[in-house]
Order: sequence, then structure tokens, then C-alpha cells
Amino acid sequence: MAAGEKDVVAFGARRAHPALAPALDRAAYVGGLDGVSTLRGAEAIGEEPIGTMPHALMIVFGDQVEAWRAYDEVMPHGVPRVALVDTYFDEKVEAVRAAEAIGERLKAVRLDTPGSRRGSFPEIIREVRWELDLRGFNDVGIFVSGGLDEEAVRRLGDAGADGFGVGTYVSCAPAVDFALDIVEVEGRLAAKRGKLSGRKQVWRCHRCMVDVVHPYERAPPKCPTCNGEMKAALQPLINNGEIVGDLKPPREIREFALDQIRKIERL
Amino acid sequence: MAAGEKDVVAFGARRAHPALAPALDRAAYVGGLDGVSTLRGAEAIGEEPIGTMPHALMIVFGDQVEAWRAYDEVMPHGVPRVALVDTYFDEKVEAVRAAEAIGERLKAVRLDTPGSRRGSFPEIIREVRWELDLRGFNDVGIFVSGGLDEEAVRRLGDAGADGFGVGTYVSCAPAVDFALDIVEVEGRLAAKRGKLSGRKQVWRCHRCMVDVVHPYERAPPKCPTCNGEMKAALQPLINNGEIVGDLKPPREIREFALDQIRKIERL
Amino acid sequence: MAAGEKDVVAFGARRAHPALAPALDRAAYVGGLDGVSTLRGAEAIGEEPIGTMPHALMIVFGDQVEAWRAYDEVMPHGVPRVALVDTYFDEKVEAVRAAEAIGERLKAVRLDTPGSRRGSFPEIIREVRWELDLRGFNDVGIFVSGGLDEEAVRRLGDAGADGFGVGTYVSCAPAVDFALDIVEVEGRLAAKRGKLSGRKQVWRCHRCMVDVVHPYERAPPKCPTCNGEMKAALQPLINNGEIVGDLKPPREIREFALDQIRKIERL
Amino acid sequence: MAAGEKDVVAFGARRAHPALAPALDRAAYVGGLDGVSTLRGAEAIGEEPIGTMPHALMIVFGDQVEAWRAYDEVMPHGVPRVALVDTYFDEKVEAVRAAEAIGERLKAVRLDTPGSRRGSFPEIIREVRWELDLRGFNDVGIFVSGGLDEEAVRRLGDAGADGFGVGTYVSCAPAVDFALDIVEVEGRLAAKRGKLSGRKQVWRCHRCMVDVVHPYERAPPKCPTCNGEMKAALQPLINNGEIVGDLKPPREIREFALDQIRKIERL
Amino acid sequence: MAAGEKDVVAFGARRAHPALAPALDRAAYVGGLDGVSTLRGAEAIGEEPIGTMPHALMIVFGDQVEAWRAYDEVMPHGVPRVALVDTYFDEKVEAVRAAEAIGERLKAVRLDTPGSRRGSFPEIIREVRWELDLRGFNDVGIFVSGGLDEEAVRRLGDAGADGFGVGTYVSCAPAVDFALDIVEVEGRLAAKRGKLSGRKQVWRCHRCMVDVVHPYERAPPKCPTCNGEMKAALQPLINNGEIVGDLKPPREIREFALDQIRKIERL
Amino acid sequence: MAAGEKDVVAFGARRAHPALAPALDRAAYVGGLDGVSTLRGAEAIGEEPIGTMPHALMIVFGDQVEAWRAYDEVMPHGVPRVALVDTYFDEKVEAVRAAEAIGERLKAVRLDTPGSRRGSFPEIIREVRWELDLRGFNDVGIFVSGGLDEEAVRRLGDAGADGFGVGTYVSCAPAVDFALDIVEVEGRLAAKRGKLSGRKQVWRCHRCMVDVVHPYERAPPKCPTCNGEMKAALQPLINNGEIVGDLKPPREIREFALDQIRKIERL
Repeated sequence: MAAGEKDVVAFGARRAHPALAPALDRAAYVGGLDGVSTLRGAEAIGEEPIGTMPHALMIVFGDQVEAWRAYDEVMPHGVPRVALVDTYFDEKVEAVRAAEAIGERLKAVRLDTPGSRRGSFPEIIREVRWELDLRGFNDVGIFVSGGLDEEAVRRLGDAGADGFGVGTYVSCAPAVDFALDIVEVEGRLAAKRGKLSGRKQVWRCHRCMVDVVHPYERAPPKCPTCNGEMKAALQPLINNGEIVGDLKPPREIREFALDQIRKIERL
Repeated sequence: MAAGEKDVVAFGARRAHPALAPALDRAAYVGGLDGVSTLRGAEAIGEEPIGTMPHALMIVFGDQVEAWRAYDEVMPHGVPRVALVDTYFDEKVEAVRAAEAIGERLKAVRLDTPGSRRGSFPEIIREVRWELDLRGFNDVGIFVSGGLDEEAVRRLGDAGADGFGVGTYVSCAPAVDFALDIVEVEGRLAAKRGKLSGRKQVWRCHRCMVDVVHPYERAPPKCPTCNGEMKAALQPLINNGEIVGDLKPPREIREFALDQIRKIERL
Repeated sequence: MAAGEKDVVAFGARRAHPALAPALDRAAYVGGLDGVSTLRGAEAIGEEPIGTMPHALMIVFGDQVEAWRAYDEVMPHGVPRVALVDTYFDEKVEAVRAAEAIGERLKAVRLDTPGSRRGSFPEIIREVRWELDLRGFNDVGIFVSGGLDEEAVRRLGDAGADGFGVGTYVSCAPAVDFALDIVEVEGRLAAKRGKLSGRKQVWRCHRCMVDVVHPYERAPPKCPTCNGEMKAALQPLINNGEIVGDLKPPREIREFALDQIRKIERL
Repeated sequence: MAAGEKDVVAFGARRAHPALAPALDRAAYVGGLDGVSTLRGAEAIGEEPIGTMPHALMIVFGDQVEAWRAYDEVMPHGVPRVALVDTYFDEKVEAVRAAEAIGERLKAVRLDTPGSRRGSFPEIIREVRWELDLRGFNDVGIFVSGGLDEEAVRRLGDAGADGFGVGTYVSCAPAVDFALDIVEVEGRLAAKRGKLSGRKQVWRCHRCMVDVVHPYERAPPKCPTCNGEMKAALQPLINNGEIVGDLKPPREIREFALDQIRKIERL
Repeated sequence: MAAGEKDVVAFGARRAHPALAPALDRAAYVGGLDGVSTLRGAEAIGEEPIGTMPHALMIVFGDQVEAWRAYDEVMPHGVPRVALVDTYFDEKVEAVRAAEAIGERLKAVRLDTPGSRRGSFPEIIREVRWELDLRGFNDVGIFVSGGLDEEAVRRLGDAGADGFGVGTYVSCAPAVDFALDIVEVEGRLAAKRGKLSGRKQVWRCHRCMVDVVHPYERAPPKCPTCNGEMKAALQPLINNGEIVGDLKPPREIREFALDQIRKIERL
Repeated sequence: MAAGEKDVVAFGARRAHPALAPALDRAAYVGGLDGVSTLRGAEAIGEEPIGTMPHALMIVFGDQVEAWRAYDEVMPHGVPRVALVDTYFDEKVEAVRAAEAIGERLKAVRLDTPGSRRGSFPEIIREVRWELDLRGFNDVGIFVSGGLDEEAVRRLGDAGADGFGVGTYVSCAPAVDFALDIVEVEGRLAAKRGKLSGRKQVWRCHRCMVDVVHPYERAPPKCPTCNGEMKAALQPLINNGEIVGDLKPPREIREFALDQIRKIERL
């Protein structure tokens, strides 16, 4: 990732059941994340997978600098050099050594600081940024990973992190409870306690991002906020076993999702 | 289930991705639950699947009593009659009507009370128990479901529930974070910050359920609590790609798990 | 009550000591409530008492529909038909049946949902509203009762309730501590510790609803907010055993109280 | 009250509606308090009313010592001398002066310390006790009043208070919600949602203070704790408009209540 | 102090180790307090010390009025008469007596109310103010002391206090942790983990009170808020053992501190 | 310090005003700490000062191992070798290198881990202990410092720390408020509000560590706990300007304090 932009990569599918990984990666991607880490997940969305070196590399070499140099030597030209800098020494010491070892080919350093050393992750990030800048490595980005959630992404981004590897928080997100219920039987209203009877349509104002639920047959309402036109949000995807809906490619769904988030943020 | 025993059935796999369902049901079963609800999950553990009627049955009939009677009429003899009693009226009214309609063939009533009507689930259960008993239906069990977690099982069991259908809480349990780390390379101690170096053995006292972690080569320790013998807990399952461990059938693993839970409870 | 307006009726005096009931109902009424439920209380304020059918009616009939129909048949023409709809079945089922049984004479349904079934009272109200509207009973109001306090009135009103029966919260309101103290003896300043000496006047600005307490003899102050005129708030009611104050009828006192509340709300 | 014993007197009925005062005082007395303060309340329970001098006495005299001496001079011989000692000076100064003025006829001092001066009421009590004892007035009791609740009685008693005047906390106690419900109609079980059907008997074990509720006709149960005999707690008081129960005098009811409290405390 | 102005006097140095007292008083003064109470501290800042009578004076006389009169009689003309009014009676009684005894020479009363009597210090202050004003002593100020912190000064000032004696809160203020670290060795960047390398300059915008920390050699930045000029905040005080900085007298440092506080308050 | 014993050393006096340092160190020592760090403080208590190397040593050398070796080379034989191991790399890496560099002369490693790296100080300590033990350095102790309070000493000691350097928490401990008050004037009882009158004696039972305060002249009481003899705790130290008390050396006072703490802990 380029210093100056914030990228969020889905790391979590790697530890899920292999049968699930492509579905998890696809969901993370269409939900707005910038990249995925499994081969099958990347294939599912039609993008290149993204990843960095593991701690195992440093441990096998037994020396960080040798490990970074070897990685730089053998990896294809187009692969970004992101050095993991928290294996043996302090992040700020390793970050400076990595920058000095790889030079201008170094895209970013990655901090996966273990929890027992993470007294204040924002301060560690600020310190690494300061030391890199002081030595002229202003273009080297800072990539962080390890137990991050949405709040951490915001807070560490403010502290200077340029990229984020998010795992469990996305791949094992809490379930959203929902239920399928029969609410109408051959025109007869029918719903158990706790459910609203009758077929319904969800109307959405795409300007105000406001939804209204109405009985299905009723005429389209005006938006309660701007009095403008509302559009039916429910569209048939399968009809009598035939796929009749328009299935968009992941990149397009993702653009749609990001577009809606931007609208909501502007409210 | 028989009134007087507490059974916990895993309902959640039904809503998971089909590729995952058997794994989820097997995990729930070996972890100690009493039954599973998917055909493939039941097959995986070598047991009969368990289930009851859905709300859809009542809605299609449009009348609870007719629905229960139809179910009783067509279902094979060995299938327990468990009447779902919360569709249109109050649980206590429907429970009494179900008992009067099916008579002594009724095994249990199921309460899946919607959240908006669940002011005090324990009180509803106590009330249903009272009304059934008062009319002589002391043998009809009470089975509950809907958003139950381990605390709810305990509390509702105290209130008189005999069986429990647990869904999301088991099928989408929170991830347990763990990591695979290299800690030794060809005899050389090697561990990143935050990890302990060297191969290790976990020693367990099966009487006190106490664990001790030691360097691998060190002689077996005595239990710090009872001074008795400890056993190595790590056993090889795969060696050079060959399965060398002893893979037990689900029922046996479940017995082992329940046995350990009972030991811990006795502490 | 008409759907679309919010009415709050004092139900609580019915359970207080009969000697107290008229005083309680009068206090509730002059404090701004819309009606009272005891015969003696209504007499005290010169209004008609307000009430609805009790659960006992349904229980004596053993069937809700019969009970509502009987009530509709025998009650004088001017009495509003408010059907209690939570006795045996779910509120939404009973509400629809009541509307179908009484038809356009039905003024409102009353929900007195017992606590053990009140998981989310606002959702139950929204559901009843939806089902009534869906069948064309848009003019049938929703009246709620049972353990309501001022916060519940606000929240349930937002959810669609049109009227409220408030009991214990008004009839057993917390005591307001006050004390009578001698602060001047024949012109001599005299007050115990913790009290301010001397006779005082309370000056109120009726525009800003601001009060100022001054020694009695001091000239009228200007309002500290608007610099306008302030009026003396203390007026003699009894003088040498003679009633000299102007005792207003309850309806007028109530108007005065509501008027002041509106002024405060506008601040 | 005698120094060394803790007495709790109900002061609150004085500020309630006169129609209620006797009922309040009787309820406080049968609930276990040691005395009441209204003439009509005392009459209702067949005891002498209890009270002390008000602050008004000191204010009218304009001097504490004169006021206490006048009270001592004119009050009948049998009335206990309890001097109110918080009007103008500090409690400890006034308490010593009162003891020196009235001498051995002084039964107790009363501290009604205003809230703005009550930084630590226990410390003030300890200080008054110390100063009285230091001067040989060990027999003068300390009586406290003003906004006391049950926790304050315990805490101030530990600090040395011998008697307590409790007002609002007893006379305006929070309402206990209960309801009368029809649960059986001419032998037919009948109860709305949230209530248990059928006539019932409450059985109590008077040794373990354990209650069990059973259908009315069922044979007396054994105590679930001690397996001993249980007694029916419901007794008819009115039958066909005739009083048939045995109405005990207040003193006897109070003894019964205190006896039960003692049993519960022993558990 | 004159009624109408708020003065805060440092009382705490009197109880510190005598070797520390002048340093404490000087620090309190340059930090913005209005006066100090030790002879040596006052000397250190070139001001007159400030103080009032102790409780011991009243106790030795055994009578408050005699003590105040004696103080008024023997103290030099220029010393302000501040009567301590909480020794034996209530503050409001003693304050009125002091004003009546000393008359127009009384500058202020001091309330050092003990904690066990300090139920609501603001109410006591309001009461004293009311009683003094009611008798025409509007010019007598109210000075408070005893365990005050910055929040108490604000709250009691709002209640009518004109002056404050602050002790422990200033003389035993919590330590501000800081450390001296080597960050550069003969031009070589050098800093341990947790510290930023290299010599730095702190740049301050004196209009926005914003600070920016930069490597020492870098050119002066613009203020990130107003884009205006920033000034270097670090100035050499000692060079090769020679004092080269400009040491201002306490009064001037205090003015500078107050000026900065005012700027911050205006933000 | 020897591994296996817990030592607590007062580090804080070094940052206090030099005039105060000896008093602070003496107070810490007589209060039970095991050593002090200033020359003047050590002199005041007649012990050797205790200290370890600062981070500046590593920074000046620019390499930890060189710094530790130089220290080992030049320091006198009797001075314990305690290597500071948190300057550039991780504590566990530096600790192992220090042990390998200094060998069996290494008494302990010191961890002064900066706050931003102190995610879980107990886990870091456990990790260092594991790595040292694994390599045979079981006799090398672990000494910790940096912002420790009494709770941290307990928790880190449980995690394996053998010694503690405590600074600000001891040198800037919160003030204990107390006041000198006149309570008797030439035999006349005299005390302001909030204080107990008269001279007193404090009686202590040295077995139960219970204190009783009595008027001075009263005969010695029996211990309220064990009914044994109590001893007067107040002893004259200065009489008419002459020192008459028995001033013990610091080491003896410390023994007395530790002895009392042990008695209290045994309660």
C-alpha cells in the first residue's frame, strides 16, 4: 500500500475452514475492505491476493536483516516489500534497520506487536513514524495487524498507520439474527405473534438513505424527509427456480456498498 | 425428551452454510450437547436427528389445534409429539389446548416465545407448568428455544424447562484466538517476542485437573496439588503425513468431555 | 379517546383508601391529567368519570368476543367502547377480533399486558397498530395501562399509543419534603440553623418563569432575565380564620397549571 | 426512652392527611415501631402518644436554655424531658448546656441536625456522647430525627444513638403492587395470562418460615426444608358480610410481627 | 480581601518542612495565587504575608466575642479584621455576632467549618450571606478554608465566597512525572525505546497557544491553526555553568502565567 | 538482591529537592523498604546506597553488550551486577544476551520497560524468567522499576519479579491530614466543634493491635478483644525544650515498624 492512503486488508479467512474461506473473503471485499489474503478468496473476487512475510521467516533465518534481504532478493519485482519489524527487537529499532537494509524498495513496515508489548500501540506507531521520517524514509508506510477492530482502525490511523490487516473481527463477525416467516397464505393475512402480517415492500430514498416499509400493494410513498421519490428495494432474484435477478460482479457490489456508506457519512 | 431430564439440542447448524453444518453439529455433540438437528450432522455423529414442528405448520393450517392433530395423525409412531404453543394465543392457553387435543401422546410443548412477548420467560414457564399440572398433565415436558445462552439454560431449567434448543450461541460461538509459532529450529531455541522458546510438554493431573507446562525433555513432574502422577497431554496425531493417533468416535469423545466437565464441577 | 390525541387518565385512586380517593383524583386533574376514574373523584372536579371494562368481564364470560359484544349491547350510547384485548390470546390477535366483532363502534382497544409478557411494549403497540390499519381499522385507538410512569408515556406514545391509564405512579407519588418554620417573631429576626431569617416574598416573572426570593418589605425587583416586571407569588388564602383568597374551580386551576408547563417547555 | 435501649418512634403521621393519620400510626405500630406521635393514632392502638419539643419553642423564647427550663417547669411529672439541641449553636455545645440546665431530670437530647450541617451525623453523635460522658451525664440518651431510613437507623445506632424519630420513610413508604384476580368461576379454572388458575392455599412452616402455594384441595404438604408440618396461612375474615375472623388488638399483632422478624433473622 | 473580589491565598506551606516552605510559596504565587502565608515565603516573593486568627484564640479566651474584640483592639490599623466564626456555635449565629461586635471595621468572616458539620458548604455560605445582608453588613466578605481544591473554589465562589485559603491541595500537589533522556550523542541519533531521537525544538504560536515539536535544525513551522508565525519555546538558561537566561522576578512570572491562562480560557 | 527474596528499594528521593532527599530516604527506610538510593539518604540511615546502571550508559556506548561488559569490568568487586535490559531490543532478547555476556557474575537483570511497551508487565516477567531458566540462568534475579505502587509490587512479585525500585509512589506519597488542637486550657475542657474535649491517652494492646482512646486520668482499660493489659502509646519526647524521649536509630525503628506490620498481617 502507498504511504498516505489507508488500506484495510482481510487477513482472517486464512484461519477459517477452507470451505468457507472464499465466501468470507468475498463478503469482506464486497463490504468495502481493500484486499483479501487467500488464493481462493482472491480468485473469487477476481483480484490479486495480498500478504506479507510471517514471523516464521525471521525465525528460520535467525536474523531479521538477513531475512528481509533474502525476501527482497527472491520476490518478483511487482510484489510490494513490506518488512515485518517486531520479531526480536523493538519496533522502532527494527523499522530503522529494515529501511536501511532494503532502501527505497521498502514499501512499508508491518507492526504485529504482541499484546504483552502493546502498552500504547498509537505511541509506538508515532515513534516509528518519527524515526523513519528523521532519517528521510518518509515514503515508507506503516502497516499494522493483530486483533484490530473498527475502533482500532480509526485510532491507529489517526496515530499514523497507513494500512491495516484485520482478521478475526471480520472473519468471525457476530451473527446477525434474522428469520424467514410466512406472513400471507394465498392472499389471507397470516403471521404469528411478533411478526407483521401481509406481503410488504421496502421503499428507499436513495438521497436521504431513509427506508419505509409498506403493505405490498400500496402506492409508492414520498420520502418522509425530502418528499422526493422512493424506490422499491426488494427485487426478485429467483423465480420458479430460475435466476432472474441481475448478479453484479464483486467489484461492482463493493462500489455500491462504499457509495451507500459515503452517503450515510454525509448525513 | 422426558419431563424430569434436561436435554440440550443444537439447533444452530440449520442456519449455517451447508458446507459447515456437519462440522458444527459434530462439534456441538462432542462438546456435550444431547442432540443435533441437521440430517448431515446427525449422520456425522451416528445419531438420529432431533426436531419439532415449525410455526409455518400452524400458519398453513390457520388453526393451532388442527395443526397439532394433523401432526399427531401423520407422524410415525416413534417420533415424539412436541407441540409448538406460541403462535397465536398466549403460551399458557395454547399449552392447555395442545394437551387436551393430543392427550397422553403429547411428549412436550415447545415455547419459542418472541422477544417482544418475553417479559419474564421464567415466569411464563412456571405458569405453563402450573396449568398443565393442575389439569393432570404432569408428564408433559416443557421445551424452550430462541436466543438461549448458557446462563439462560441454567435459569430457565430452574424455572421448570425440561429441554432446550440452542442455536446461534453454539453455531456462531466466539472465536478462540490461538496461533502456531515456531519456537525451536533444529534444536536451536527460537521464539519471537511474546512467545516462550523451546519444545514443551503439557502435563495433566487427571484427578485434580491441573496442567503444568515444562520444557519437553524434562522428567515428568508431580502434581502441584496432590503430588500425584501427571500424564503427558500432547499426543502425536499425524506423523510424516500418516495418521498415527487413535481417532475416537463422536460418542466416545463426548463421554470424555462430559467426564472432564464433571471432574471440574466437583472441584 | 380519539385516535390521534394523547389522553392520560388517572386510574390510581381506585386502589387508595376511599377517604383519600377524591383528593388524589382532584390533585391528578389540576396537575394536568385528562380524566379520573372514581365516582367521588369525578364529582369533586365536576367531570364525568372515565373507565373501561376489567379482565373480570372476560373471565366471567369465559370468551372475549362474547364479553365485548355483551358490553357493546348493554352500555348506554354515549359511553366509548374500549375493548380490553390481552386476557387469553395475544394482543394482536384479540385486537383484530375485537375490531371485527364491534365494528365501527369500537373507540379503542386497551392493552394492559402483564409484565411477564411485556418484552417490548413499544413493539407490541406497533404490531397492533399495523394489524388494525392493514384491515382498515385506522380509527380504532390504542389505550395502554399497567405500571406506567412519565417516561413510559413518552416512549409508548412515540410507538403509537393514543391514551394512557396511569395508576400508582400518580396516586402514590413520592413525598415532597417541606417544613413550616418560624423565621420572624414580632418583627424580630428569628430562624434556626439551616433556615433564612425574616419574612419573604417570592417574585415571579410570568414571561420567563423565573423566581426571586427577597425580604418581604423590599421593593419589587426586575426580572434578572428580561428586566421586566415581576409579580408577588404569595397571596393570603386565610386571614384570622376567614377565607379571603380566591378559590378557583379545578378546571381553571388545571388550565393555569398546563399554561405554566407550556411556558416552561417553550424556554 | 431509656439510654441503652434503641427505640424507634413513628413521627410521619403528623404530616399526612388527618383522615389517614390513625391508619398510618396503627400500621407503623403493628409493623414493629415502638411508639406513635398523633393523638388519634395513639388512641387507635391504645398507647400513649410520644413526642418532644419543636424548634418553635426555642425560637419563641429566643434562647435555648430558657426554653428548656420553661419546658421542664411546666410539663407534668411523668413526661420524659427530651431537649432539642440543634437550634442555634452546635449540637455538642447545646447538649452540654441542656444537661447542665436540667440536670438529672434530662432523659435525652434530640438531634434533628439540618442537612446542610450534617457532614457526618455519626461523628456528631459520637462527639455529643463523649462530651456528655466526660461531664458525668452518662444516663442522658441521644435521640435523632430527620430523614432517617432503615439503613440510617442501623448506622446511627452503631454510632451511639439510643432513639430514632422516623417520618416520611414510614408514612410515605413505597406502594406494594398487588392485584385481585378471578382465578376460578364456579369450579371452572379461569385466569388471564400472567396469573395462575384455580383457588390456592398458602402453606407455611412456622419453624423455617418457608411458604408453599398449592391448589386449594390438595392435602397439606411437608416443609421442603425440615420435612415438618405446614399450616394453612389463609384464614377467612369475612363470610357473607359477617366478620368471622379473630381480630387481634394492635399490641398482639405487633408481637406476632416482631416474632416472625426474629425468626427470619435467626435463619 | 474586599467583598466582591475573589482572592485565593496559599495556606499550605505552613505545614510543610521549613526548608521547603519558601519554594512552595513561591511556586504557588508564580502559578497565580494571590498571596502566601509564611514569613519566609512572603520574603521570597517580595510581598506581605497574609493570615487570619486561629481557633486557638477563641479557645484561650473561651468566648468568641471577647476574642474578636481583643484582636480588633490590639492589631495594627492596617491589618484587615477577618473573624473566624465557626468555633462553638453555628456559622450563621457567629457571623452575625462578629459583625455586631466589630462593626464596620470587620473586613470579612472566615468559615473553616469542620467536615462533620459540612453537609452542604454552599448552603451555609448562602445562609451567612443572607443573614449579613439582611442586617446591613453587605460589605463584610466571606472567606472559606479547609480541604479546598480547584473544583471547590469554583463551586463555593458561585455560592458567594469572596476569598479562599487553599492548603494541602497546593502544597502537596501530585507529582508531574518527567524524565531526562539522552536522544543524541555527538550528532549521532540515539534514543532508547519509548523516546524520540534527536535534538528538538518546541515551537509555540502565542496567539493560538498551539505547540509543535520538530527536529532542532528544521526551519520554523507555521501555526497549524492560524498559519501565523511560531516562536521557539526553548531558551538556554545555563551555558557552561554560566547563567545566561533572563531570570524574571516572581511578580512578572506570575503575570506571564496568568496571561497564558487567560489566553487558554478565551479559546 | 538475591533471586528468591523480594527486595523493595526507594528510588524516588533522587528526583526530590536535595534538601528533602535524606528525610525522604529515612522515612522510606524506617517504614520498611529495604534500601535507599541517594548518598545523603544512605548516610542518614547508616546503610550503603543501592543503585543500578542508567539507560544513559547504553546510549553512550551505543551497544548494550559493550555497556554491560564495561560496567562489569570497572565496577568494584562487591557491587552487584544488575544489567538494565530494555534499552533497544526486547527485554527477553536483552536479558538472555546480558546473561551470556556477564555469566555467573550477573546478579540480576532490571526491567524498566517504558509504558508504551508495557502491555502486560507480568507476562513479560514470566517470559524473561522462562528464557533465563531454559538456558540455566536460574540464579539471575529479575528487578523491575517504573511507576510501581503497592499493588504492582504484589502482582509483579507473583509473576516472578525478585526486586522492585519504587520512586514517586513513596517519595511523593499523598499527605495525611492532621491538625493540632487545643482541647483543655488549665484544666478547663475546651474544644471547638468537631473535636473531642480534654486530654487523652491512647491505650494499645500489643497482642491484638487494638487501640482505645480514653480521658487522660482514667485508669488503664483492658483490651476489648483479649481482655489483656493495654499500654499507654503516648510518650513525652520533649519536655520544657529538653529532649527526654528515647530516640532509636533508623534500623531499630524499621524493625519495630516491620514487627507491627507482621502482627497486623497475622490478624
